[in-house]
Parts: sequence; C-alpha cells; structure tokens
Amino acid sequence: MKSYGIGVDIGGTTVKIGVFESDGTLVKTWEIPTRTEDEGSHILGDIALSVKEKLKEEEISLEEVKGIGMGVPGPVTEEGLVLKCVNLGWGVFHAAKVMSDLVGLPVKVGNDANVAALGEMWQGGGKGCDSLVLLTLGTGVGAGIVLNQRILTGCSGAAGEVGHMHVNLTETESCSCGNKGCLEQYTSATGVVRLMKRYFASHQEADSLVDRNKAFSAKDVFDAAREGDKAALCVVEEFGEYLGNALAALACVVNPEAFVIGGGMAAAGDILMDIVEKNYRNYAFHAVKDAKVLRATLGNMAGIYGGAKMALSE
Amino acid sequence: MKSYGIGVDIGGTTVKIGVFESDGTLVKTWEIPTRTEDEGSHILGDIALSVKEKLKEEEISLEEVKGIGMGVPGPVTEEGLVLKCVNLGWGVFHAAKVMSDLVGLPVKVGNDANVAALGEMWQGGGKGCDSLVLLTLGTGVGAGIVLNQRILTGCSGAAGEVGHMHVNLTETESCSCGNKGCLEQYTSATGVVRLMKRYFASHQEADSLVDRNKAFSAKDVFDAAREGDKAALCVVEEFGEYLGNALAALACVVNPEAFVIGGGMAAAGDILMDIVEKNYRNYAFHAVKDAKVLRATLGNMAGIYGGAKMALSE
Repeated sequence: MKSYGIGVDIGGTTVKIGVFESDGTLVKTWEIPTRTEDEGSHILGDIALSVKEKLKEEEISLEEVKGIGMGVPGPVTEEGLVLKCVNLGWGVFHAAKVMSDLVGLPVKVGNDANVAALGEMWQGGGKGCDSLVLLTLGTGVGAGIVLNQRILTGCSGAAGEVGHMHVNLTETESCSCGNKGCLEQYTSATGVVRLMKRYFASHQEADSLVDRNKAFSAKDVFDAAREGDKAALCVVEEFGEYLGNALAALACVVNPEAFVIGGGMAAAGDILMDIVEKNYRNYAFHAVKDAKVLRATLGNMAGIYGGAKMALSE
Repeated sequence: MKSYGIGVDIGGTTVKIGVFESDGTLVKTWEIPTRTEDEGSHILGDIALSVKEKLKEEEISLEEVKGIGMGVPGPVTEEGLVLKCVNLGWGVFHAAKVMSDLVGLPVKVGNDANVAALGEMWQGGGKGCDSLVLLTLGTGVGAGIVLNQRILTGCSGAAGEVGHMHVNLTETESCSCGNKGCLEQYTSATGVVRLMKRYFASHQEADSLVDRNKAFSAKDVFDAAREGDKAALCVVEEFGEYLGNALAALACVVNPEAFVIGGGMAAAGDILMDIVEKNYRNYAFHAVKDAKVLRATLGNMAGIYGGAKMALSE
C-alpha cells in the first residue's frame, strides 16, 4: 500500500492543495478559491470537500493518506492553535482539530512561512539539510526556521519574524509595524524602491537607467544594476549589506546549515545572490561563516510541499 | 529508591561538581582543580574518581544515579561531540563516551553557556519557563538558548554565539574575533569600559565620578551612573540601547518566553535591568514585546544545575 501526504497552503485569495507520495513525488495539485466571507467559516469545509473529491478521482483511499499538513497566514502555536489570521477572517481556534473532524484524517497546522521552509528543506533548495532559514523577499520579508528537521515555532508562534528585526538605530521613517529601522524597510521589494528614492533624493544630479520621474520597481533597480548602472549598484550594495548582516546575526543565534533565499525578489538571480553571500561572509562570525547561501527552488509550491512533509512526519 | 543527577561544569581552572535530587534539591557540591597539562587528558579521569569517592561518602549507589551532565567551554554538537576546548587543551573527541566508560553511567555533554541556560530554567531566574535565552555579561558576552526545554545547539555547536552578532555597521575598532561591530564590543564589561573611554575622548571637559586618569571597571561606570553621574549615565544608556536592541532581534528569531540576564555585570542590579528592559520594549516587534526580562539567580552554580537537569531528562 502506498502512503500519501496532503499539503494545503491557505492564502487570502486561493488555497493550494497537493497530494504527494511519501518520497516527495507530486501526484496532483490544484487550487480552490478562499472564501473569506462569514469570518472565513467556509474555508476548511471547502478544503475538506475538495480533498475528498480529488482523492476519489485519483482512486486513493483515506486509509492510504497519512494526513494533511496546512500552512496558514498567521501565528500558530507549537500545539497547532491558530492565534489569528486577519486575511482569512479567522480569530483564535484549533484549526487542526476542526479540519481533522471534517475530513477524518490527522491534521497538522503551521504558519505558512515556516511550512514553506520545511518544503524547501524536503524537496527544494535546501534538500539534504537538517536545519535552514528560508528568507522570502517579496513585498515584505518573511522567514521560516527549521532546526533538526522541525519547524521553530516560538512561545507565541512568532519565531522567524525576521522582517522586523531592528537593524538600524538611526532610521527616521516608520515600518508598517510602527517601529523604525526594521530589516523589511531595506530588503523587501518596497524597501529597495525606498532605498533607490533615497539615493535619488541625495544625488539630485545622478544619471541612472532607473527613471526617477516614473514609478519603478525593485526589479527595475536590479535590472539596471545588472547593466552596470552606478546608482542602482549603490542601492543593491546597500540592500546586500543589510541582508548579509542580518543573516550573520541569524547565524550567531540559530547556527543553521543553510540560508535559502526565495520570494519574488529572488528572481533577480545571481546579482542578488552574489551580493547577499559576499556580505554574509564578510560579517559572519568565524564559527558560522561556512553556512550555505542557496536559492529557493519551489516558488509558491513550497507551502504544499512543506504541508505534505508535516503530514508525513511523526 | 531516590533518583539523582550529577552536574559537572568544567572550567579552565576548576571543575564544579554537584549531586542533585530529581526535584532540584542540591545534595552536595564541591570543586576539583582542572589539570590542563598533557592536552587535558587527566581531566575526565580526575572527575570520574572524585565523583565515585563522593558518592561513596554520601552512601549513594551508582544505581541511584540517572546520569551525569557536563558543560564544557567550547562548541559541542547535538550528538555530544566536543569540537574543541582551547582552555582545556582538548581537540575533537567524544567526551560523553569517554566519561561514560570511566564512570559507568550515562553521560551527556553540552556547551557550558547552553548548559547554564538550562540550569537557570530548571531552578533559577527562568524557573517555570519552557523557552529562554540566558545572556551572560562578563568579560565577554555569552549566551545559551533553550527552546521547549531543550538546548539549541546549532549545526556546528555555535548556536547562541550572540556576543558576536554584528550590531554596528560603522564600528572602526576590532573585536577579539576579528570582526568590527560585535555586540560584545558594547555590552561586555570590557565593552562598557571602552564606551566610557570613548565618551571621555569625545567630551574632553566632561566632569565625572569615574576618574579618567586611572584604570576603571564597568562596575565603576554603573556605580557612578547610580549616583546620577551624567557621563556614566550616557554610557549606560548606550549600553542599554545596544543590548535591548539585540534582545529585540533575538526575540524576532526564536520568540522565547523570557530573557535571563546573568554574569558578573548583572551585579549592577536594577539600573542595568531597567535600562535593558526599557530598550527591549522600545525596539521589540509587537508580537514579541511581552517576553519577560529576568535576572539570573544561580550565579556560577548555573552550570552544575543545568548539567544535572540534562542528566535527569530523557
């Protein structure tokens, strides 16, 4: 008899679901819309129904499924208690128990960034590692930490909130969280745009491939830097210094085998990876300097991989 | 039949040993010198002999002892492999196995700072917590991290090396590790003296209770600050800003229930604890702002408590 694990990644718009064999082979993946109305009370029922239908289609019996692992966009305690998911309309409740009752399978639940980190370790950029930190550089900066193949949750589900590590004592602008000087203010896509605007403000005469008079993106900045644009290169260097330094701090705390870099910004490729790695090696304490700096490979599938891995683990 | 655990804290000069009941009651504690000659090859034999003698004196049989937990001054892997202890003359070897063969009991081994953190959680300032970070502020800055009642080791035994978190991008002086801008350069006893000297250098006319023309200690700085000395207060504030900010970063990474502050400098008392806590609350991300900031209570006994707790744990 085969043994399957089901990974579920609940986002604010769609739910991604994947059925995996225990060796990591993806059997089937699909999406359903996330119905956030009525305080998100339909979400788990919709997922349960959809999973049962697909298993029937695939001729997989419930007995062959070891369980379901779900990633949700909010803090989750070690025991699987969801503390709040604003994007889903959810308050505090035991989502794993409710889902398990609905579908008749063991269910585990974790924060989506943490679950994605587990996915990257299982079948992605961090395959073969026992411990890693996944940094997701998108509109914001998210992270998931896996140590000894287990997700690090923290006492209130807030471990891995590295986007809000305070990295600059002299910042004057506020982060979305209300603090000033968070890592996210320098190393997210919005952060890079902000750094570029700052550069233009303090270099009024600077020539650049980035058009300061139009809206531009972090991608525009990295594209220009790749062409050798001096202004963009300054900003990319600043980005790399903040991020490499943060990785060095993280390494002194949890001493992971690898850092895995993902999220929309990682599409910038070598120029981004090289600058992050250079700065990491520069700032890291000697005992942790050898940590690998790797690229995430699963993209937005990392969550369903990680969910399935949770389901398949003891 | 009673059940005992033995804690051993191996320092460069003396070995502290303690016999504990399983409820944390200290039955007997003593010290022996650390013989570091001949590449430290006598150390474990000396401890084994001394433990056996004391157990006989106390009329405790080996059957009543669950095991020995040892803290050593160097990195130790998850599996108990000692990677190197320069102060003891030790290279890479499996200290737990050697000790176990010598004494005929199960032996666990960990890094001394980590083991001390476990001790503070078991019977010290962090009693009742499931996760904490112990910061030891002495000549240097050490730390031990305990999550879910287990020591966080890291992939190469370097987790909790927070003294070498890089916290200042603009530092020009070098840390003992070779980097520039490590936390230890601002928040150790030597760091505080350095900050005070810097203050004097940039405030030539400043009046202070600290005599700039004589050698002074971190204690002198805190003593002067307690008397309202303006120069010393500036330095204490700077110290607090660096340390509170580092705790805030740590909280975003591992989300512990508490920070426990120990080491020689913690003797400065309320003035130190208050400034650290104030800065922590100021810089911490909202989801982790509630972490407790506590004082260590076991002093240099934390290591034997933690060792015994390791021995008594499954």
